[in-house]
Amino acid sequence: MTELSQLSYALDTFYILICAVLVMWMAAGFAMLEAGLVRAKNTAEILTKNIALFAIACTMYLLVGYALMYSGDPGGLLPNLGVLIGQEYSLEELGGSDAPVYAQRADFFFQVVFVATAMSIVSGAVAERMKLWSFMAFAVVMTAVIYPVSGYWTWGGGWLSDLGYVDYAGSGIVHLVGASAALAGVILLGPRRGKYGRNGAIQPIPGANMPLATLGTFILWMGWFGFNGGSELKLSDATSANHIAQVLVNTNAAAGAGLLAALMLAKAWFRKADLSMILNGALAGLVAITADPLSPSALGTLGIGALGGALTTVAIVMLDKFRLDDPVGAISVHGVAGIWGILAVPLGNAEASIGIQLIGTVTLFAWSFLASLGLWWLLRRSVGIRVSEAEEYEGVDLSECGLEAYPEFTIGK
Amino acid sequence: MTELSQLSYALDTFYILICAVLVMWMAAGFAMLEAGLVRAKNTAEILTKNIALFAIACTMYLLVGYALMYSGDPGGLLPNLGVLIGQEYSLEELGGSDAPVYAQRADFFFQVVFVATAMSIVSGAVAERMKLWSFMAFAVVMTAVIYPVSGYWTWGGGWLSDLGYVDYAGSGIVHLVGASAALAGVILLGPRRGKYGRNGAIQPIPGANMPLATLGTFILWMGWFGFNGGSELKLSDATSANHIAQVLVNTNAAAGAGLLAALMLAKAWFRKADLSMILNGALAGLVAITADPLSPSALGTLGIGALGGALTTVAIVMLDKFRLDDPVGAISVHGVAGIWGILAVPLGNAEASIGIQLIGTVTLFAWSFLASLGLWWLLRRSVGIRVSEAEEYEGVDLSECGLEAYPEFTIGK
Amino acid sequence: MTELSQLSYALDTFYILICAVLVMWMAAGFAMLEAGLVRAKNTAEILTKNIALFAIACTMYLLVGYALMYSGDPGGLLPNLGVLIGQEYSLEELGGSDAPVYAQRADFFFQVVFVATAMSIVSGAVAERMKLWSFMAFAVVMTAVIYPVSGYWTWGGGWLSDLGYVDYAGSGIVHLVGASAALAGVILLGPRRGKYGRNGAIQPIPGANMPLATLGTFILWMGWFGFNGGSELKLSDATSANHIAQVLVNTNAAAGAGLLAALMLAKAWFRKADLSMILNGALAGLVAITADPLSPSALGTLGIGALGGALTTVAIVMLDKFRLDDPVGAISVHGVAGIWGILAVPLGNAEASIGIQLIGTVTLFAWSFLASLGLWWLLRRSVGIRVSEAEEYEGVDLSECGLEAYPEFTIGK
Repeated sequence: MTELSQLSYALDTFYILICAVLVMWMAAGFAMLEAGLVRAKNTAEILTKNIALFAIACTMYLLVGYALMYSGDPGGLLPNLGVLIGQEYSLEELGGSDAPVYAQRADFFFQVVFVATAMSIVSGAVAERMKLWSFMAFAVVMTAVIYPVSGYWTWGGGWLSDLGYVDYAGSGIVHLVGASAALAGVILLGPRRGKYGRNGAIQPIPGANMPLATLGTFILWMGWFGFNGGSELKLSDATSANHIAQVLVNTNAAAGAGLLAALMLAKAWFRKADLSMILNGALAGLVAITADPLSPSALGTLGIGALGGALTTVAIVMLDKFRLDDPVGAISVHGVAGIWGILAVPLGNAEASIGIQLIGTVTLFAWSFLASLGLWWLLRRSVGIRVSEAEEYEGVDLSECGLEAYPEFTIGK
Repeated sequence: MTELSQLSYALDTFYILICAVLVMWMAAGFAMLEAGLVRAKNTAEILTKNIALFAIACTMYLLVGYALMYSGDPGGLLPNLGVLIGQEYSLEELGGSDAPVYAQRADFFFQVVFVATAMSIVSGAVAERMKLWSFMAFAVVMTAVIYPVSGYWTWGGGWLSDLGYVDYAGSGIVHLVGASAALAGVILLGPRRGKYGRNGAIQPIPGANMPLATLGTFILWMGWFGFNGGSELKLSDATSANHIAQVLVNTNAAAGAGLLAALMLAKAWFRKADLSMILNGALAGLVAITADPLSPSALGTLGIGALGGALTTVAIVMLDKFRLDDPVGAISVHGVAGIWGILAVPLGNAEASIGIQLIGTVTLFAWSFLASLGLWWLLRRSVGIRVSEAEEYEGVDLSECGLEAYPEFTIGK
Repeated sequence: MTELSQLSYALDTFYILICAVLVMWMAAGFAMLEAGLVRAKNTAEILTKNIALFAIACTMYLLVGYALMYSGDPGGLLPNLGVLIGQEYSLEELGGSDAPVYAQRADFFFQVVFVATAMSIVSGAVAERMKLWSFMAFAVVMTAVIYPVSGYWTWGGGWLSDLGYVDYAGSGIVHLVGASAALAGVILLGPRRGKYGRNGAIQPIPGANMPLATLGTFILWMGWFGFNGGSELKLSDATSANHIAQVLVNTNAAAGAGLLAALMLAKAWFRKADLSMILNGALAGLVAITADPLSPSALGTLGIGALGGALTTVAIVMLDKFRLDDPVGAISVHGVAGIWGILAVPLGNAEASIGIQLIGTVTLFAWSFLASLGLWWLLRRSVGIRVSEAEEYEGVDLSECGLEAYPEFTIGK
């Protein structure tokens, strides 16, 4: 390698590593967001889940998932199952995607934090009533197998990628997949006690710590610059650099538009600037633009983000009508805005087709939902997935973690 | 472009984007700082303001402000008003400042987070008694017009820039402009009920959550490396790289010196290591060095930062004497230390003149203060800017946002 | 310099500066971790300590420490004592380590945040009963002299470096040195009142704010990518870039393994997923891999991290048996996992010898422990190091800082 090409290689490696660090930071964002939106008595447990799932994701994807996702045949349906028994691939032998421009290790680091993001989406939706250890077991399989299989179909070069499915940074591949797994869990788990009364009554259960939830949203917003910006995968020529700048501007604009749409809708609908809706509106804008943050114009981006924020606000209200209890709104934010993002790609990107985007949406949803449903069902049949009524009433912090999140602050409730 | 110049271009783009991400992160810093320094009952509203103003700033500057700031004639007084009616410029056509070395989009991203910073300064000063929607309306005009106009005079190439006003990263252009708008608001709004009693009695109103305020300060300190470091605008040659390193070392040293000066002054004056004063001391050191973090020596930097911290501590106490109620000390930190920073430039930088620095200070203050005063006055005459006495007593969280920041923690008060 | 070598220089400078910003961010991590693990009544004081020690470290290392650490003779024992009286060196004259590839200022910025890290380790261990101003005085000497002297022996090119002691990013040089100073303080200070009862009874004192502690851990995890990644010191060729990628993957994997080991051990031992143990497990994994995050294989890394997490969990329990009261577990995390990390280097790195690693361990511990013991003893004899019984009962926030961290939340206790 010439000195110049080494320098180029070093710059690309550094760029992808910094983006990965920003995506890793999103794990803290999910932890704070979810810890802020649950009740005090369940806060230590949701923190435990969030940081432990990150560790599980990093370990399982290192041992199994990365190889499963990137060692299959081009255009295929079935991934290379040999890696599940550890017989064929080591991390060193894997190139990772089709962009050998940067080091394999750098690629692994960028990919592994994406898996953790998908898994983080699940933890919020099943908060306040799921058994900690069943959740951990789910995380092991999700990050070792479920995510990597659909990851192989798309970023790993499998059949959906061959078909022409477009999903720049993963509105579907990461966010819809996470939300679908969460939905399956919520259906089997049932709502929190007291959430839904007779005759369709819905009891609001406010989050205990809104500064934490806001901090979590800011962290996610910041980390998303790595999530979307890093997905260009290459920086070191003028075109790539311009693309990344465009991606960051659009990512930021969509978040702002999603927030403002949710704010205005909440004001019109509930007469209040409901902070939790506003935060989810910003996240919905981010999820929606993720499928293609590069092609849309400035105005197009504002539209995609705003509609993402509005649809998510409606979805959060509707889910409660169906008695699907998602304490943090994760299914609406990552599922509904994720689908909108995938389907909006053809509006700005001539290379995408609405038909293939639909096939991608249905496939990713069906795979993640059904595989997760089966896994949650197995867990329910064997070790159980729901804590006892007494534990739920007392809060899962004491029963699962043996400590309280705020031992000096809480006053009953 | 040769491969080498492309690589250089890519590195500069990446550098400015990373700095912009750090400045975006400052929005979270302001949100946490202000949320920590107000009372629990007004916390959700200040969080709402902070994250919504960021979205407003990003949207309005994209639609109008950036074009207004950067499309006027060189050396002029009146910006290009055509852009206000959307007839002449699109983002794509704008070069942004006089440094075409990096992509226009990257420049926009770096500039837009500066606008949000200026606006963030306002929200803290008017906390705990301003109507949410009047604040939002102010944010729309501030980020679309008021900031861009004085921005045109300076970074946009207008008359102050021609005159030789020196303000590296914006002690005046960002911080004094924000503080002047805040001062105008505070004057028209009046103090919080119960803050000032008869015979000059001043009632301390402690912040509800000091860890949040400390976190916010750390976030701002961190983000400031992007704020000042990015203002070099170019990285890709040895001189620029050395400049950026110098800027970061000085920025850090000034923050430390500001903190220690405030700490020692508070200990001598109040006999206590008052944490809120210490945090503001660090921020004052940062504001003061921002006008020129490149020229001063190590000892000079320590002096500029320390005097910034000390002056701000005095200013916070004096403002209360004048019954100007600024719950978070924003006017002192960003206004007083900002002015000190602008005027200190000639001490280390032979290219700056104290006369022109004074003209710049007066101009930026007068413009932002008077334009804001007019706008706040219009809002007061029309929709009103202050919540009712009952709402203020109960806390603006319930009346404006319909939820509480800490529903399980607060015990009356 | 050619354009190419300037670009290379600029990239290396940028890389080391970004890593330094991430390490600076660790100061916020320590502040949040410690603030979360102490009681509410001592929270403002621990925040004050953390942010003030950062300012002290930055100032003292700028004025004295950096010169002391990097101006001594190669292979020597006694540093250049001339700098203590300010007579010989200025920052501009110092090259900093033996890697003149990037700017001296950039090197200084990277080194100064390491000093702050070492000092941050101390604050948690002596929490809830130490006098604020004695702590500050200790911080002055620690960051000006104690750390720089052993820093000279190792990274400064002194005798330990000559001998062949291997410590990539400072499991010993930073973490063990910090933990040894903390241990000396804890011994002279004694335990918090009520912590240890008769007949070996140990009273758990839960932390007041577990979301803060979790946030702090995430921040440290994130910042560690700069801590270890930056310690490669050079990015701009393919080999260095690949090294950095490897370092980041291993750093992340070790943290995850440390967390999971602590989680499983806590579950087996206490029957609960103790969140505070889990957080310390992740940190222990990070400390352990820091001595050599480059050489180990993926499986080796998981082993080093996991054993770090397990040893630290045991050490936290054992320290209580010896009535050494460390409220946040800092001695176990940084001392025990630090030693394990140093001694594990020869397992994966053929250039390291277990004998020399042992000499390094003993030397760093003995120096930091004895020098600190002497300094703490002098402080105890003169101004005292422990607050009064009444102040400890009431909480040091009121007596030292004159305010409360959570004035509206706490309910007695």
